[in-house]
Amino acid sequence: MKYDRTFNFSAGPAMMPEPVLEEIRDEMMNYRGSGMCVMEMSHRSAVYQGIIDAAEKDLRELMGIPDNYKVLFIQGGATLQFSMIPMNLMKNGKAVYIETGAWSKKAIAEAKKVGEVVVAASSKDKNYTYVPDCSDLDIPEDADYVYICENETIHGVTWQKLPNTKGKILVSDQSSMFLSRPCNVSDYGMIYAGVQKNVGPAGMVVVIIREDLIRDDLTDLPVYLQYKTHADAGSMYNTPNCWAIYCCGKVFRYLLDQGGLEVMNQKNIDKAKVMYDFLDQSEMFTGTVVPEDRSLMNIPFVTASKELDAEVVAATKAAGFDNLKGHKSVGGLRASTYNAMPKEGVEALVEFLKKFEAEHK
Amino acid sequence: MKYDRTFNFSAGPAMMPEPVLEEIRDEMMNYRGSGMCVMEMSHRSAVYQGIIDAAEKDLRELMGIPDNYKVLFIQGGATLQFSMIPMNLMKNGKAVYIETGAWSKKAIAEAKKVGEVVVAASSKDKNYTYVPDCSDLDIPEDADYVYICENETIHGVTWQKLPNTKGKILVSDQSSMFLSRPCNVSDYGMIYAGVQKNVGPAGMVVVIIREDLIRDDLTDLPVYLQYKTHADAGSMYNTPNCWAIYCCGKVFRYLLDQGGLEVMNQKNIDKAKVMYDFLDQSEMFTGTVVPEDRSLMNIPFVTASKELDAEVVAATKAAGFDNLKGHKSVGGLRASTYNAMPKEGVEALVEFLKKFEAEHK
Repeated sequence: MKYDRTFNFSAGPAMMPEPVLEEIRDEMMNYRGSGMCVMEMSHRSAVYQGIIDAAEKDLRELMGIPDNYKVLFIQGGATLQFSMIPMNLMKNGKAVYIETGAWSKKAIAEAKKVGEVVVAASSKDKNYTYVPDCSDLDIPEDADYVYICENETIHGVTWQKLPNTKGKILVSDQSSMFLSRPCNVSDYGMIYAGVQKNVGPAGMVVVIIREDLIRDDLTDLPVYLQYKTHADAGSMYNTPNCWAIYCCGKVFRYLLDQGGLEVMNQKNIDKAKVMYDFLDQSEMFTGTVVPEDRSLMNIPFVTASKELDAEVVAATKAAGFDNLKGHKSVGGLRASTYNAMPKEGVEALVEFLKKFEAEHK
Repeated sequence: MKYDRTFNFSAGPAMMPEPVLEEIRDEMMNYRGSGMCVMEMSHRSAVYQGIIDAAEKDLRELMGIPDNYKVLFIQGGATLQFSMIPMNLMKNGKAVYIETGAWSKKAIAEAKKVGEVVVAASSKDKNYTYVPDCSDLDIPEDADYVYICENETIHGVTWQKLPNTKGKILVSDQSSMFLSRPCNVSDYGMIYAGVQKNVGPAGMVVVIIREDLIRDDLTDLPVYLQYKTHADAGSMYNTPNCWAIYCCGKVFRYLLDQGGLEVMNQKNIDKAKVMYDFLDQSEMFTGTVVPEDRSLMNIPFVTASKELDAEVVAATKAAGFDNLKGHKSVGGLRASTYNAMPKEGVEALVEFLKKFEAEHK
């Protein structure tokens, strides 16, 4: 591998495309004749405005974002969105949440500080190893929205079919699946994603929100916490995470050049299949999620014992695969195979695990 | 100049030290044998923990931060701090603010959403061109803190002597003067600074807060908005702006290698003197701030007319000096001369302005 780079299976921050990193490196001392690094640019300058405009334009093209949706770049991670969403979208003070893992659970805890939360379905009974049937939920008439975490990074489940919201708007945390497959934006009132998993450097969330949901009657809220603040100012009410916008913009461009989200989806299916096919025939390793709800991005698996789990993690690390330790709430191992993970990385890992299994029978 | 870089007088984001940018560039594809770029590292990994630990350690050494102060890295800019400060520090629901320019004014507006704000002094009467005498203010007995913006980026005034807070804790926005001169941290309850002016890339605030001010009775607040959240988790409750921490860490190290804040202060005094000496003898250009309160970091100045102001801005830009246009609320021009601006940059600008003046008599 060029530059002796490792196969990094981190759940995020995670691998970025090598050609993107090379471009960033080459533009470091003097961005395209501007005489400065992007980190040094005034966010009010024409050259930086060009960067943020291109990033938004390319993201809109990539996802096919309709004109009546705003694209916002906001700091504070998904954690701040857990609060901003109920603060901005709860008009009646009530919302429906579906609990499918650690991240929806955290969102629920924060929303409860703001208003009434109805948990209409949960997979807690089986430690979040599946997505509940949400085709006919009991949705209160006065609920303001239905909230899901569309891919649970820790528990490794993905929604294959969106819930029936009975006409309520759908709000989705797509952090760990953002841009991994095509997405029909019109199905949602709001989509958001921390970019540090499938796109770029940590410290920014992309929010895609239908314009009519942006309220102007929330002037008592802290100015940073109003979507209106960011929407009205093109995400530059105050200085944004300029660097993340620049890097993400490059990744958006790279994904377009790769052929867009249909192509990425096929690549991700192919990659994950290598891993799941191995797990399904292995006698040592077991995937923790029911087959029909498995994530293509985060693949948790376990052995029969914690000791063996730890031994495998150490062995993978020594062999040049990094960040395979599973989250403590699931245990075992987890391979995160985002867009930038090459298929060769997954194949090499599977080969290694096969060999390990054969040697430890 | 190596790399054909420009003298960038931006108020922020702004110039960074060239050797720091070179290091970052050289570590882009593979950080010190880790096999990955810093942007790709799990924030829970040992290698990244080493980066954030070193950054905090070097900052503590640089500023002489006492052990009973926490150092926090938080997203959302000064704008989010405008809200977090009253949310976290108003116990009695009342605080004293001093209004010295655009940024303290914004802080006041946000604090008013949270509690009672007593503006004990203001320089609004003269468009914020001076710092009011604050040696004997009327501070209410039940005020929770006194708030100042220690260097007003837009209006170009700096506090030379801290206010007499009559025993109340002092909270200071040091964004545009952070690390430009020595600072006795014990004089403050809390100091904070957006790093994108005098340190590194936008998207992060450094908060230095006395431990006893961090409350654990604020569990109803959004988790991201509690200082306790960040303090308890070493700024990694959620994924921080890892890249900004890495880059700022390099600048902290660079400043230590330069000799520390006494050395930087002398350099900044020397640089600003070049500019102010010129302004004080010029017949065309006038500094807008009273001499005794002038900032060493942000130097606003005007000509006799808006037309001439605009002509000068255009001429400087054409001559390779960037971002000299003043903020619309002050007009004219503004030269921001942060740590990373070399003295040669200011000398070259002054030479250019002298020539311009001679040619336009």
